Amino acid sequence: MLRDIDPILSPDLLHILRAMGHGDELVIADANFPATSTGQRITRLDGLEATQVLQAVLSVMPLDNFVSDPALTMQMVEDPSATPPIVLMFQDIINDVADHPAQIQSLERFAFYQRAKSAFAVVQTGEQRLYGNIIVKKGVVAP
Amino acid sequence: MLRDIDPILSPDLLHILRAMGHGDELVIADANFPATSTGQRITRLDGLEATQVLQAVLSVMPLDNFVSDPALTMQMVEDPSATPPIVLMFQDIINDVADHPAQIQSLERFAFYQRAKSAFAVVQTGEQRLYGNIIVKKGVVAP
Amino acid sequence: MLRDIDPILSPDLLHILRAMGHGDELVIADANFPATSTGQRITRLDGLEATQVLQAVLSVMPLDNFVSDPALTMQMVEDPSATPPIVLMFQDIINDVADHPAQIQSLERFAFYQRAKSAFAVVQTGEQRLYGNIIVKKGVVAP
Amino acid sequence: MLRDIDPILSPDLLHILRAMGHGDELVIADANFPATSTGQRITRLDGLEATQVLQAVLSVMPLDNFVSDPALTMQMVEDPSATPPIVLMFQDIINDVADHPAQIQSLERFAFYQRAKSAFAVVQTGEQRLYGNIIVKKGVVAP
Amino acid sequence: MLRDIDPILSPDLLHILRAMGHGDELVIADANFPATSTGQRITRLDGLEATQVLQAVLSVMPLDNFVSDPALTMQMVEDPSATPPIVLMFQDIINDVADHPAQIQSLERFAFYQRAKSAFAVVQTGEQRLYGNIIVKKGVVAP
Amino acid sequence: MLRDIDPILSPDLLHILRAMGHGDELVIADANFPATSTGQRITRLDGLEATQVLQAVLSVMPLDNFVSDPALTMQMVEDPSATPPIVLMFQDIINDVADHPAQIQSLERFAFYQRAKSAFAVVQTGEQRLYGNIIVKKGVVAP
Amino acid sequence: MLRDIDPILSPDLLHILRAMGHGDELVIADANFPATSTGQRITRLDGLEATQVLQAVLSVMPLDNFVSDPALTMQMVEDPSATPPIVLMFQDIINDVADHPAQIQSLERFAFYQRAKSAFAVVQTGEQRLYGNIIVKKGVVAP
Amino acid sequence: MLRDIDPILSPDLLHILRAMGHGDELVIADANFPATSTGQRITRLDGLEATQVLQAVLSVMPLDNFVSDPALTMQMVEDPSATPPIVLMFQDIINDVADHPAQIQSLERFAFYQRAKSAFAVVQTGEQRLYGNIIVKKGVVAP
Amino acid sequence: MLRDIDPILSPDLLHILRAMGHGDELVIADANFPATSTGQRITRLDGLEATQVLQAVLSVMPLDNFVSDPALTMQMVEDPSATPPIVLMFQDIINDVADHPAQIQSLERFAFYQRAKSAFAVVQTGEQRLYGNIIVKKGVVAP
Amino acid sequence: MLRDIDPILSPDLLHILRAMGHGDELVIADANFPATSTGQRITRLDGLEATQVLQAVLSVMPLDNFVSDPALTMQMVEDPSATPPIVLMFQDIINDVADHPAQIQSLERFAFYQRAKSAFAVVQTGEQRLYGNIIVKKGVVAP
Repeated sequence: MLRDIDPILSPDLLHILRAMGHGDELVIADANFPATSTGQRITRLDGLEATQVLQAVLSVMPLDNFVSDPALTMQMVEDPSATPPIVLMFQDIINDVADHPAQIQSLERFAFYQRAKSAFAVVQTGEQRLYGNIIVKKGVVAP
Repeated sequence: MLRDIDPILSPDLLHILRAMGHGDELVIADANFPATSTGQRITRLDGLEATQVLQAVLSVMPLDNFVSDPALTMQMVEDPSATPPIVLMFQDIINDVADHPAQIQSLERFAFYQRAKSAFAVVQTGEQRLYGNIIVKKGVVAP
Repeated sequence: MLRDIDPILSPDLLHILRAMGHGDELVIADANFPATSTGQRITRLDGLEATQVLQAVLSVMPLDNFVSDPALTMQMVEDPSATPPIVLMFQDIINDVADHPAQIQSLERFAFYQRAKSAFAVVQTGEQRLYGNIIVKKGVVAP
Repeated sequence: MLRDIDPILSPDLLHILRAMGHGDELVIADANFPATSTGQRITRLDGLEATQVLQAVLSVMPLDNFVSDPALTMQMVEDPSATPPIVLMFQDIINDVADHPAQIQSLERFAFYQRAKSAFAVVQTGEQRLYGNIIVKKGVVAP
Repeated sequence: MLRDIDPILSPDLLHILRAMGHGDELVIADANFPATSTGQRITRLDGLEATQVLQAVLSVMPLDNFVSDPALTMQMVEDPSATPPIVLMFQDIINDVADHPAQIQSLERFAFYQRAKSAFAVVQTGEQRLYGNIIVKKGVVAP
Repeated sequence: MLRDIDPILSPDLLHILRAMGHGDELVIADANFPATSTGQRITRLDGLEATQVLQAVLSVMPLDNFVSDPALTMQMVEDPSATPPIVLMFQDIINDVADHPAQIQSLERFAFYQRAKSAFAVVQTGEQRLYGNIIVKKGVVAP
Repeated sequence: MLRDIDPILSPDLLHILRAMGHGDELVIADANFPATSTGQRITRLDGLEATQVLQAVLSVMPLDNFVSDPALTMQMVEDPSATPPIVLMFQDIINDVADHPAQIQSLERFAFYQRAKSAFAVVQTGEQRLYGNIIVKKGVVAP
Repeated sequence: MLRDIDPILSPDLLHILRAMGHGDELVIADANFPATSTGQRITRLDGLEATQVLQAVLSVMPLDNFVSDPALTMQMVEDPSATPPIVLMFQDIINDVADHPAQIQSLERFAFYQRAKSAFAVVQTGEQRLYGNIIVKKGVVAP
Repeated sequence: MLRDIDPILSPDLLHILRAMGHGDELVIADANFPATSTGQRITRLDGLEATQVLQAVLSVMPLDNFVSDPALTMQMVEDPSATPPIVLMFQDIINDVADHPAQIQSLERFAFYQRAKSAFAVVQTGEQRLYGNIIVKKGVVAP
Repeated sequence: MLRDIDPILSPDLLHILRAMGHGDELVIADANFPATSTGQRITRLDGLEATQVLQAVLSVMPLDNFVSDPALTMQMVEDPSATPPIVLMFQDIINDVADHPAQIQSLERFAFYQRAKSAFAVVQTGEQRLYGNIIVKKGVVAP
């Protein structure tokens, strides 16, 4: 463990977050997401909720404020305009923790998969709630 | 995730548990344990408690009933005969989950480190309670 | 071996099944299938029948119930509408073991090969009966 | 599969058997044997019996006739002079299949483990019967 | 060496032949063939003739009888309809050793190179005779 | 870069610091130190001073307070009891930044080299001042 | 360290510079640049300014004088014709240190990213000033 | 060193030359050539002249006499029809050493780069003279 | 193939011979020798006789004339003073091909195995004659 | 090539020299030296003389002035007190190029081999003169 760094940030996840640059994206995936077959780099946090992981990630990773969609979730297949409960919790965490305000945007399911394929990395969590996936884009640390 | 298998058993940990044979030992280590410099094989379950991990491990791994000490914890340095609270919880889990009864035995701190060096693998958890380490020895599945 | 897990699930196959996500596909191939040149990941269970392996796989892997064709076999070249005897046995195993009901669908021979190339993994068995290949798609474990 | 070669001899096991030389030893281990932590090279034949594997191995591997103990099993801990039932079956297979006659000798349990550590390779089978392990030493093929 | 298996089948070549499936092709190439830059997998049998290697390969590998061209040689550039002397010897070996009869077919030189690029493997021999290359397609072993 | 984490902590150094456990040691070495031939793991921060690196390391790494010598420098060969100027600066940084107070202890030159060989890792800096090396031992983060 | 070679040129960066040939390009990137996801080869100089690194690189690397644009920076998004302050400093360093005079040219932001993807390597510095990126093309050393 | 083999043929270069087949090409490149970013395989002979290396290569490698252009150099950009002095020396070496006569042909500069990308390997020499690059195509050794 | 180099010297064997230095030893082993478990480096020439390989090796490798035993064979177990027929042929080849005269010396069987373990490499041939093993020590090429 | 750096310093040799620290040793070996079997790290400069390489190495590498024997050659076996001609040339180069004066010392032949085994690296040159080997110890660059 390290001082003042959330201990659920494992050695590999810290390395990934530190190596990412402006505009690189991270997928925080739920337990059913096909992470191994999708991601360019994979790390796992089995047993943890996606909300825990999002909170830990945003505590160290700046969110991109150059674009209007630095946080993306998957649209409900049956009702694209609805918001799954976990997405409301994601939004609360962004509101509380992120260095910049951001309104979560959403992608149609297969567009979300495509976006995930080009992301820097995927963190597979143990999240069991439906639609428990979010993509966050790294911003810059102001000098 | 798989049916009827505790989802905190990650792909790597399942592989380790399945590849271990009779007499091989697994160290479930707390968040401060020097796992990377000690273990022959390492896997991580950051953010989880050692008690959660012990319960999941024993749900699939038989405990060795050929020896009298298939479960080993570290003695408190200041009082070798005392039992840290988490060890009582480890004992409860063994009583509840293990396929064979076993009384936890203990090793002096440096003897514990030596034993860990020859173990099959170390699982580093996020356990933050003191003395949150346990070594379990794999038994056989009766035909 | 592990408690209550079919012992023919080897360390590598368990790792594959646990790492697969929703929608990933596994090919259970017979002994003559060109598995090494087709599969993205390969593991072997020489000497075992495809039916044994299907039963073991479905005992832990949820079958996808979001699609109508989560189980696919190869059509007989000479009579696409016929059903080879082993496929009837595959259907019985699904009926008995799978977590969701599913009617096996079939693919023309070369379409089957193409589908296998994009699968998550191929398990090469020792199955010697004709048309002893099946593709199964992983589903989700409900929370 | 290959013509006139037992199909349970996998690509890796055939490679091992062909690469071994005079005096090199192979361990055919049961499902509980600590193969991964013991062997210099490991291959697996999950789900098969040790007797099946011994028969297949001896169908292609010459047995050493320069020594008096080219086949070794583990002594029963409780009664070193007794012969476990599976060892009688091993002896029958040698009598039937091997290119040279050989009387199985036995080693005390820990001497057997030590011998296995210096063997060329270990094949882990799915054998569930007790004492289902045997070490065979490769001989020469006469010109 | 192994019992009743041609000793020129090296560990690597045996592994390749055993891992190939129905429809996979093997190129037996002469000493001047650009094997390293062409083949997906390469193994070498320097100093041996292509005819020796073909005989050894066909002693264990079934020839495909589902297609009309399971054996292919290269057409003479100057006279596509002529048959080089070594091809007559290849045909004799097939007649003597193969499990199924097959009439060697031929490919124009550059079509042969293209076919070799998609083969499972290339075995580079020490064959010095002209047009000493042949592609053989693996068949099935009947149950 | 990450929020509130010193940007000179590179991805590799963060990974090392996070993976170290209680009692593992890190060598911060000057530009002339034989780091590549000494260290079990090596990372580099060329162009930076050892004092900058010590400050960044201690901002995240707890210092061991179970031992009396969690910080070690090299004794001046010519005057073992003297204190090189940079060591005074190291002490100031510990006083300012470390989570526990610690008095730097020193080792004879060759004892220092031996200690470095068993350390978890060596960070080679661009430090050009004499005796610009320090070993720090990781402590625990209290729950 | 080496005699008369700037010590911030690390072993890896020296290797890269020496292995580059005429026309190969090096990206000196700031701390926010997505170097890991962009570069064909990556090396890091955390904590250093891009201007320091440019000066060290040009002290050993010849600049291409066969083309009119051997040094390229990124245009300011909001004002493509403006020159960020750090670019003026880059130009001063080229004027002082390079073996050939060169006028820095600029690329639109996304054209710059594309160019970086085809560069020989990216050096990620700790530069925190905006637009602190420059691409330099290697020239020849006259005989 | 080996008997009667030019000692500048290093272990790696000998391996490359021996592994090449009929029609494979080798690039002998000068010290400024972008060999690392161009070649499929790279080996180096720093400090040697391209003429020395050509002489050594042709002492063991047959030159292709099936094509009219088994030796190719780069055209002078300013005067495509001119012949650089080193090319005259290359021609003399071919005349003296090659097993078949060949007239050097030339390629426009960028066509030469493209051709080099598809070559079997590039040998980077220390040649400092302009246009000191040559591509040679391997022939056959007559039986 | 290469000009004037015996074609049975494969790419790997040529690399080994060229990389060996004064005093390094090569084992030419017969088909039953435990080469894989003995040698530090292994290469194979299946199907060839040890005498063919010795002749090819000595055509390029100088034999050490600084020692009295640059060529060593294995003593016959039953009659250490006897000379197996193949050793007479080895001696003839040395007399004919080697650059220095040398009288073959012999080692007791287990001393031969020990010597082979410290050799630079082992070439496993297809030699089937008894005692078909020889160790040769590399000499120097005079300037 | 790089500006003002001897072009015979290859990418790998530059990397080695830059990564070496105070007290690390480099062996410059002649063409007959058993470099591959002796060195911990190997690089080659085939075709060059050891004197050329020593000159290039000392142009960038400081020589250790903390010890009395920073340069070591091999004693002539037949006359340990004699000085081979090439050693006189090594001494001249040190006198001309090194940053510190040093008198070459010598080691008995087998002591030299032992010393080489613990060196940081060996550079194998094409030197053909007898006793053309030298070990140089790296010093420090004064601040």
